[in-house]
Amino acid sequence: MAKVRVRRGIELMKKQAEGRKRVVIERVQPEIDGGRYPIKRVVGEQVSVEADIFADGHDALGGVLLVRREKDAKWTEVPLEFLNNDRWRATFTVSEVGRYRYTLTAWVDHFMSWYRDLGKRLEAGQDVSVDLLIGAKLIREGSKRAKGHEAERLEEWAKVLQSDRKKTPEKIAVAEDEGLPRLMARHPDRRWETTYEKELPVVVDREIARFSTWYEMFPRSCSPKAGQHGTFKDCEARLPYIADMGFDVLYFPPIHPIGQAHRKGKNNSPVCQSDDVGSPWGIGSKEGGHKAIHPQLGTLADFKRLVAKAKDHGIEIALDIALQCSPDHPYVKEHQEWFRMRPDGTVQYAENPPKKYQDIYPLEFENDDWKGLWKESTGVILYWAKQGVRIFRVDNPHTKPFRFWEYLITEVKKEYPDVILLSEAFTRPKVMYKLAKLGFSQSYTYFTWRHTKSEFTEYLTELTKTEVCEYFRPNFWPNTPDILIEHLQTGGRPAFMVRLILAATLTSNYGIYGPAFELMEHLPFEPGSEEYLHSEKYELKHWDIQRRDSLKELITRVNRIRRAHPALQTNVGLRFHSIDNDQLLCYTKQTEDPSNVILVVVNLDRHHTQGGWMELDLHALGLTPDHSYEVHDLLTDQVYLWHGSRNYIELGLDPYPAHIFQVQRKIRTEQDYTYYT
Amino acid sequence: MAKVRVRRGIELMKKQAEGRKRVVIERVQPEIDGGRYPIKRVVGEQVSVEADIFADGHDALGGVLLVRREKDAKWTEVPLEFLNNDRWRATFTVSEVGRYRYTLTAWVDHFMSWYRDLGKRLEAGQDVSVDLLIGAKLIREGSKRAKGHEAERLEEWAKVLQSDRKKTPEKIAVAEDEGLPRLMARHPDRRWETTYEKELPVVVDREIARFSTWYEMFPRSCSPKAGQHGTFKDCEARLPYIADMGFDVLYFPPIHPIGQAHRKGKNNSPVCQSDDVGSPWGIGSKEGGHKAIHPQLGTLADFKRLVAKAKDHGIEIALDIALQCSPDHPYVKEHQEWFRMRPDGTVQYAENPPKKYQDIYPLEFENDDWKGLWKESTGVILYWAKQGVRIFRVDNPHTKPFRFWEYLITEVKKEYPDVILLSEAFTRPKVMYKLAKLGFSQSYTYFTWRHTKSEFTEYLTELTKTEVCEYFRPNFWPNTPDILIEHLQTGGRPAFMVRLILAATLTSNYGIYGPAFELMEHLPFEPGSEEYLHSEKYELKHWDIQRRDSLKELITRVNRIRRAHPALQTNVGLRFHSIDNDQLLCYTKQTEDPSNVILVVVNLDRHHTQGGWMELDLHALGLTPDHSYEVHDLLTDQVYLWHGSRNYIELGLDPYPAHIFQVQRKIRTEQDYTYYT
Repeated sequence: MAKVRVRRGIELMKKQAEGRKRVVIERVQPEIDGGRYPIKRVVGEQVSVEADIFADGHDALGGVLLVRREKDAKWTEVPLEFLNNDRWRATFTVSEVGRYRYTLTAWVDHFMSWYRDLGKRLEAGQDVSVDLLIGAKLIREGSKRAKGHEAERLEEWAKVLQSDRKKTPEKIAVAEDEGLPRLMARHPDRRWETTYEKELPVVVDREIARFSTWYEMFPRSCSPKAGQHGTFKDCEARLPYIADMGFDVLYFPPIHPIGQAHRKGKNNSPVCQSDDVGSPWGIGSKEGGHKAIHPQLGTLADFKRLVAKAKDHGIEIALDIALQCSPDHPYVKEHQEWFRMRPDGTVQYAENPPKKYQDIYPLEFENDDWKGLWKESTGVILYWAKQGVRIFRVDNPHTKPFRFWEYLITEVKKEYPDVILLSEAFTRPKVMYKLAKLGFSQSYTYFTWRHTKSEFTEYLTELTKTEVCEYFRPNFWPNTPDILIEHLQTGGRPAFMVRLILAATLTSNYGIYGPAFELMEHLPFEPGSEEYLHSEKYELKHWDIQRRDSLKELITRVNRIRRAHPALQTNVGLRFHSIDNDQLLCYTKQTEDPSNVILVVVNLDRHHTQGGWMELDLHALGLTPDHSYEVHDLLTDQVYLWHGSRNYIELGLDPYPAHIFQVQRKIRTEQDYTYYT
Repeated sequence: MAKVRVRRGIELMKKQAEGRKRVVIERVQPEIDGGRYPIKRVVGEQVSVEADIFADGHDALGGVLLVRREKDAKWTEVPLEFLNNDRWRATFTVSEVGRYRYTLTAWVDHFMSWYRDLGKRLEAGQDVSVDLLIGAKLIREGSKRAKGHEAERLEEWAKVLQSDRKKTPEKIAVAEDEGLPRLMARHPDRRWETTYEKELPVVVDREIARFSTWYEMFPRSCSPKAGQHGTFKDCEARLPYIADMGFDVLYFPPIHPIGQAHRKGKNNSPVCQSDDVGSPWGIGSKEGGHKAIHPQLGTLADFKRLVAKAKDHGIEIALDIALQCSPDHPYVKEHQEWFRMRPDGTVQYAENPPKKYQDIYPLEFENDDWKGLWKESTGVILYWAKQGVRIFRVDNPHTKPFRFWEYLITEVKKEYPDVILLSEAFTRPKVMYKLAKLGFSQSYTYFTWRHTKSEFTEYLTELTKTEVCEYFRPNFWPNTPDILIEHLQTGGRPAFMVRLILAATLTSNYGIYGPAFELMEHLPFEPGSEEYLHSEKYELKHWDIQRRDSLKELITRVNRIRRAHPALQTNVGLRFHSIDNDQLLCYTKQTEDPSNVILVVVNLDRHHTQGGWMELDLHALGLTPDHSYEVHDLLTDQVYLWHGSRNYIELGLDPYPAHIFQVQRKIRTEQDYTYYT
């Protein structure tokens, strides 16, 4: 049993000099689970660190925030500033992908106590002759800690204060010199400083970990010819279409050979026809496993070419990591120890009793060679990273051990710190958060099943206003190949538009499964099911991406707005505003830059026009009740002039069931009005 | 710099078998500052421990809470029960003074997963022949972990499930036997159990740490003859008076010799007359220091006799520990290194610039012999503990280092685990809480300066409904020799009554400084000051404790109510109720026993009668809207019959500005009504 004993008083005595460390550093924020897990940032972001710092008595304190890249030994110091109620703060910026550490150090500052008290004594008209001698000693000690000119300067001051020949007023003038505390602050007595007992970790990712726009697509459905198996070359031809819509991540379901044994037929039929292509998640055949490419998609060279072409379009290819096997996967023969055997000598297939998935063999992580399995799985990601892939969407991570993921992500990031992993865990909240803490860069969420104003408000508040935002980056998906929500089945075009706009503006990471989404594919396999009828998981599809009713135009417009407005590229500035109609949802996003405020109003009713009085929190938006402001609908290009916090909104379904307003708050003269020009 | 590195993924690989520990234990409560500090309990109380416990996938889990006395190696196990949302709970009772530890262990229970899934398979009418063989293996492994009859029983079951001769229905009947999971639960497979990484501490005190009634008194003012220095013998004569009022702790300001140098005269005068007795906090003279007794009070034998006599009256004597010295204290000569020297060769006196306290030399905890000072200070408490004292009120602990207190309290409690220390720290909130975390058993509070309904509600909610209640035991004082609040100076008898009733019923620990309190001493030294005129700190007083207007009767009555009603002996069951008049404060206290509910209504207006509609939270009190209930004013002995949540209350100042009702909630028949008899 692991034992971490709490340090007992007596042990303090054993350590020389510890007894004089009088400062306490507590309640450091951010700190996830006592420092066990890192907070997350992207390059260029700030970390604002706060702590309770205090000592016994009434002495003045000083302190610094210590920061270093994990690979460096040397700390950089940032002075801590006092806030109030024993709370202190300092801020640093992370500038490189990788890991950082931060901690804090603070000390009792006898010079500053002396300086502060001298002022009080002088104000009370007291004799300070002895106090000046005390100060001289403190300043002389400071001069010994300083060097060169600074040391000389302090020594001179000390001499004056100690001089028998100088008169008291002269000495007081020196003691009250503002340069004195400034210089002494650069050379404090830190012999008995207290350093916080933990070095807290930060994982710094590329900016795309915070702001990304995903498009999921089955490459095998990209053939220009119906019924023909698509190839990576066909995908190349599809790139301009995807890039034009404004996506920067193109995610493929597994691209590996697909097993034949128990292969599922169309519509998940347990009986498979000879021409059925099977599910890409039934990974592995005699042609190879997780490091192989489905022969009909192309070669490794084709794949690498596609990755490069995508890059030219500003798109990164993301691969699916599904750690499971078809019965034909090479592992089943080569590593039988990685599977659970049944008493009848067969391999245990996947189950969710009473459901059986005989086309899938789960890996058994409690096997005696778990180390081998961990290494091999890590090797799969390293292999694809070597081929140029840096983004992975991990299938069902919640069915593999937590420690395994921590190991895998740590090992992968050692070689490729720029790797980004999206956790596809639709499971219980604590499990989802745990996976994020362990290192997943982005996470699927419950957005898919949130529909009402109160649901959005509550869920987004949890995601963006609590500690969760330090380690969990939500990625909102209106649909996936597994999930066609009832709302999209029955809500028609307005439902698709609303879900898109919500996903794209509530959080900075979102994605759609296309072309099913833009073509508003909405028929379920059966009533009450969230599976698609003729699901692409089990058959080739031929999508008419040029269809006139496609949502392509709206998607393009929305993604363009996201790119142009930093407020939509982060979640920290999300704020909900009151509106007196439960079918209308109203929120703003903003950055620290006052010129970047986006106001979104969405009609959640898929069938009717809705109106209501909105009550904006003007103060939070940097607006004043007595100045007008302009709102510019970036979807329709219409401009309105508003005044005060209350405004009436009426929203139909056509052309869009939402406004995405840019709020122009610094209107100073007539010439600034769009109306005027 | 101390470094606690967060465990990295790779290190997990190094530890054999760790990779198969799939369970996570997180967010354990109670846990103070990551387990750095103990929670507090008194003998007989419960500790209810909760944690998030979960694993990957969908396997069933099992777990136990582990508990031990710190001095024992052996853990006791209490099964954890599932609550919801991955939260589990178990409870234990502490039965001895001293320290306990608790932690948690949990595991994946493959047998229970199998048992649960078998039910689903059977319900779906599936062939379970292979599943029964899987079960047989799990049960046989269980039988190997069991012994004797239990092992045999499990082996028999396994044999049946595996038998070729038995028919499937027979096997299923065995597998569905309720005794099977019950027996298997006693022998789970814990090879890869996860144990929480911390052993969390509990400090268990005597019951008086939670429920105590303090009376502070200057022994030198106990002489029956005015102007004569009181003695411990005089104190003996005062014991019946104190015991009759219902106090169980009698606390003396320092009883040591008082210094002559810079001794303060009456009313804190810097000039001292020859007959001035000085402040008891000016500790030390040629007659001795912190281990000596003021010669005019008596001998050590007299003191020990007083301690014994007090015990006969159900009273414990509490001493004051003020770690500071008069200039005449023996330490000043014997341990000059424990004081700070000024450049003029004098010892640094106490200051709060520009104020100077030349009669007091503070101890310098940053001196090179800080270890010697720590040991000597600890020795002072150990000395008095040896003389039979077990309760100490510590003067200004916030001006001595935190680490020192942790050392001292730990060392003292090693020898005398039943020692109780009251922290007299009127300082910033975080400092006060820190001292409590470090080990002080009880603490002075801001009660003294809280007056309005919102102030009481907010402060008591913080003290009793947040984590604070796990380590901070408030002790409410309406007055002290240092603090005569303006409210008492001007509020007359009602103000004294209100402050007493609030202190005695809001929290389970309270105290008064008497006889000044019961005799309603209320003149300040000067307007705006909280110092008493003719403060007992600087002169002998002769109190007429038999005065007819004394509050003795009320105090006796209130303390009797406290003793009779367990609801008033703890703070956990405090609840404020709405009343539509800000001058009326309404709250209930209750234990888990539904028969013990006390309802207090206080008129905060010192001058006028106030009335208002009260809205009781009936559900919380175990009352129903459609049943009448009886409230019995324990102060006036009047009984009222109430119905529903809304009742009108009118409270004057005479005889008391408060009701202390006992709520009788289980009224079943006419005969139960007091009205009826």
